[in-house]
Formats: sequence, C-alpha cells, structure tokens
Amino acid sequence: MNNVTALLKEQAERFEHTLEQYLPGGESVVAQAMRYSLMGGGKRIRPVLAQAFCALFGGRPEDAAPLAVAIELVHCYSLVHDDLPCMDNDDMRRGRPACHKQFGEQAALLAGSAMLCEALLVLHNTQLQAECRCEAVNILMRASIDMIEGQWQDLSYESVAITRAQLEEMNALKTGALLRAACELGCLAAGASEDQMRAARQYAAQLGLLFQLTDDILDVTASSETLGKTAGKDAAAGKNTWVSLLGLPAAQQFAHELAAAAQQAIAGYADAEHLLYQLPQWLLTRNN
Amino acid sequence: MNNVTALLKEQAERFEHTLEQYLPGGESVVAQAMRYSLMGGGKRIRPVLAQAFCALFGGRPEDAAPLAVAIELVHCYSLVHDDLPCMDNDDMRRGRPACHKQFGEQAALLAGSAMLCEALLVLHNTQLQAECRCEAVNILMRASIDMIEGQWQDLSYESVAITRAQLEEMNALKTGALLRAACELGCLAAGASEDQMRAARQYAAQLGLLFQLTDDILDVTASSETLGKTAGKDAAAGKNTWVSLLGLPAAQQFAHELAAAAQQAIAGYADAEHLLYQLPQWLLTRNN
Repeated sequence: MNNVTALLKEQAERFEHTLEQYLPGGESVVAQAMRYSLMGGGKRIRPVLAQAFCALFGGRPEDAAPLAVAIELVHCYSLVHDDLPCMDNDDMRRGRPACHKQFGEQAALLAGSAMLCEALLVLHNTQLQAECRCEAVNILMRASIDMIEGQWQDLSYESVAITRAQLEEMNALKTGALLRAACELGCLAAGASEDQMRAARQYAAQLGLLFQLTDDILDVTASSETLGKTAGKDAAAGKNTWVSLLGLPAAQQFAHELAAAAQQAIAGYADAEHLLYQLPQWLLTRNN
Repeated sequence: MNNVTALLKEQAERFEHTLEQYLPGGESVVAQAMRYSLMGGGKRIRPVLAQAFCALFGGRPEDAAPLAVAIELVHCYSLVHDDLPCMDNDDMRRGRPACHKQFGEQAALLAGSAMLCEALLVLHNTQLQAECRCEAVNILMRASIDMIEGQWQDLSYESVAITRAQLEEMNALKTGALLRAACELGCLAAGASEDQMRAARQYAAQLGLLFQLTDDILDVTASSETLGKTAGKDAAAGKNTWVSLLGLPAAQQFAHELAAAAQQAIAGYADAEHLLYQLPQWLLTRNN
C-alpha cells in the first residue's frame, strides 16, 4: 500500500466518523435503508475532495464537514436509484446486496429520495453564513440535475453508436458534475478566491473524465471480486464506454493525459506531495 | 359553479401562468417528462394556499410566487414517483397517462428526482433574503422527508389492520406535511408573526386530515371519469382509508368537524368570505 492509498484510507475513515454524526435516526425501514446505503463503505472520493480543497485554500475542517456529508448523501442517493431494476438493475454494490435487494424496491426508491432531501437539511444545520449555505444548495442541486441528465443519456445511449463528443458530454454530466460540485463546495467553505475556484473547477473537469475512464478500464480488466460489483457488466449491456469507443490502449493513454492535466491545473497551489496532486496518478493505478 | 369553485379555478389558472415561466427548458426526454407532469392540471391547492397565506398576512404576490412554484414541484415529484409500477402502480393521473406510461419508467424516475432538485433551484432565484431562502429550503425538505415516511407507512400498512392513531399519523405525514409546508411558505414570504404562523399551522393540520378524508370518501363515492384517476382503487388494494376504518357516515361526520376546526383556526384573521375560510367547506362538497 503506497502513501496515497494509505492517506485516502485515513481520510475516508475520518470522514466515516463525521458521517456517523449525521446519520438519520429512527427505526423506520426507510431510515434503515438510508443508513445501510450511507455506511456501505466506498472510497468517499467526493467528501475527500471537498475537505482537501477547503484545507488547500485555508478553510477550517469543521466548515467543510457538513458540505462533505451533503455531497456524499447526494452521491449515495444516485447509487441507490441507479441500481434499481428499472435503471441499471444492479444487484450488488460495494460487495453487498444493493439497497433494493436488501430492503425492497419501494424502500430503496424512498430512501434514495430521502437522502437527497437530507443533503439539504445537513447544509441547513451548519455554522456557515446564510449566503454561503444558499450557494451550497445551488451548487449541489445544479450538479444533481446535471447528473440526472447524464444518467438519462447513459441509459438512452445503450446499444447506440455515439461520438466521442457525446461520450464526453455524458461523462461530464453523469460523473463529472458531482466531482466538480465536491471541489466547489470545498472552495466555498474556505472562502476561496475566483482564481482558486477556477483552478479547482479545471482540476475537477479533468478528474471527472479520468474517474470514468479508469472505471471503464477496470470494468474490462478487473474481477468482480476486486471491484465489489459485477465486472464486465457495461460491455455485456452494450454500454458506450471509453474502452468501447477508443479501445483499451488509447483509453489508457488518454487517462494518463488527463491525470497530467489535472495536476497542471492545481500546480500553482499544491506541491507534488499534496494529496490532490497525487490523486490523479493514484486513479491510474487503482484496482477497485 | 359556486364562488369558491370559480375563485379556486381563477387562482389555479393564474398560477399556471407563473409556473410556465419556471418550466425547465431543453429537449431532453427528462425535461419533457418534467413539463408533462408539471402542466398536467390539478387543483394547485398547495400553491393557492402559499399565495393566499402570503396575501392574508400582507406579503407581496411576487415573493410568494417562487415558493408556490417550489411546493408544486415537490408535489409533482411525489406524484410521479408514487405512480411508478413498484409503488402505487397507477397508470392514470388527472385523466391522462401517468408520467411513466407516457415516457417510460426510467425517464419518470429521473424526472421526479429532477423536479425535487428544481424546487430548490427555484428558491435560489428569488428576491428573498438569504436567511429567508434557507428557511424555505428547510421547510420544504423537512416536509418532503415527512411525506416520504408517510408514503412508506401507507405502502407497508396495505392489508394490515391499523389503529386510528396510526392512520392519523400516516395521513399527517403523507398528505399533511406538504400542505402545512405550503401554508408555512406563504407565511414566510409575508414575514408573518409567530401568532400568525401558529394559526396557519393549526389550519394546515386540520386541512391535511380533511383533504385525505375527502379523498378517501371520493374513492368510494365518485366515478373514475369524474376523478380523472381509477376510482375504488384503494379499497381494491386493501388500503387503510378513513372510510375503511370509520365507515362512510362517520368519515363524513369527522370531515365536517375538521372543516369547522380549520375555519376556527384562522377566524381571527380571515373573514367568512375569504378563500381560506371557504376552502374547508368547499373540500366537503368537491367531486374530484
């Protein structure tokens, strides 16, 4: 385990403790399904990004924490709904039964929507100024709508030949929007300057593509066991992926270019040892 | 057509014009599904309540308008998701095919979630102070989570004998929460006093029960044609309703008591001619 893997693991674990403080209470099945989905592990990349950008630009961890929780709530909502039978129909998520396999479709649908709502309530209960909270709502909801549009494009492109521009747009919406929002929320919590915000967005744009590329690459190179979800599923479903469009070698080459561009975007702020600088390289070598 | 019916129709039509200005643009199928669901008619009771309470307590129509749009967006989201095959499985809504029958389940699920997100964006683009916008987000999201819990209770109580207290709680959550939020948002837009807010909440609590009671009564007394949705469906599904619990005569009696209590709650602010005062009586006599 190299340094970045260890650092990401440590940050993810620290975030889990934060998240526990925000878990919805109550014994209702919907609340249980929410907790199950929220505490299902995962890399917690979005919260880590929000907290890292906040720290990079001089913000306090306690200001980034609720924003990090909010973005993870939105991410988890999207996973629960995407896994539903009428959507991607995925039975496994992070090595466990998907929410709808564990609690049924009705509870999963409702829990997903409730996590989206909870994200907004978490923002409400912060020390942030009202203007700042409003801006956070705006960032989160724009990203969510973009993500929804991206998910629609992904579903409607199944078994249809699409162009690289279409794949890039779909990718930017489906995966990129929420990663970008995570970076923006970190900047917001730190009261970052316009230049800093611009650098973060640039970084996020590359990272969003890179993240999807490495996901697509893993779908054909990794096993289900390592992934914690069904491998080879995209190819089987006739999904358009970077690998199906470019072929594996060119996809890997493009991924390397994106990683370099992401590092370039924040080179003026983060040194080579910084987690945000290391993260793009790490994504190239991840195996789940 | 009596005065209240005419007045409600006029207010609903005025609201439709407001709503048109807030409709999501774009040619994506998800955007089309959102517009289809939003412009499907309906009584627009929640927006009318928000606007009427704003006016009652001296607020400006332009401050209430976006809040009225936001609450209708949340209401429409809930209808689209509730109609889905895995939920209530209703093919008809307001005399037209339900959203998922028209656009497919995937688009309907995504359009529903997108409407929830849009509600928050609408709040963002208002002239209201940031503190006030934050409070509106809070009101809307708390009500949405309550509504979700109510929908879960409703589904899980199917073919199970429940008590009157359970039915009342489920009702307060499923139908009451959003009606209450509508009244609260109207008060918020007007900068209403604590006393005024309390009166509005009292009114809303009675109205929420009354609304469900008259819905349950109509399910057994009206035709599908008049209702614009499948009549007798609740009874067929073994749903717990006020009619199944109390019997028709006692349910009708209880409805009359609630209407009187609602009027009592705002008697200090609204005279007998006021729409808000007339509305509870009107609900008793509605046929769809």
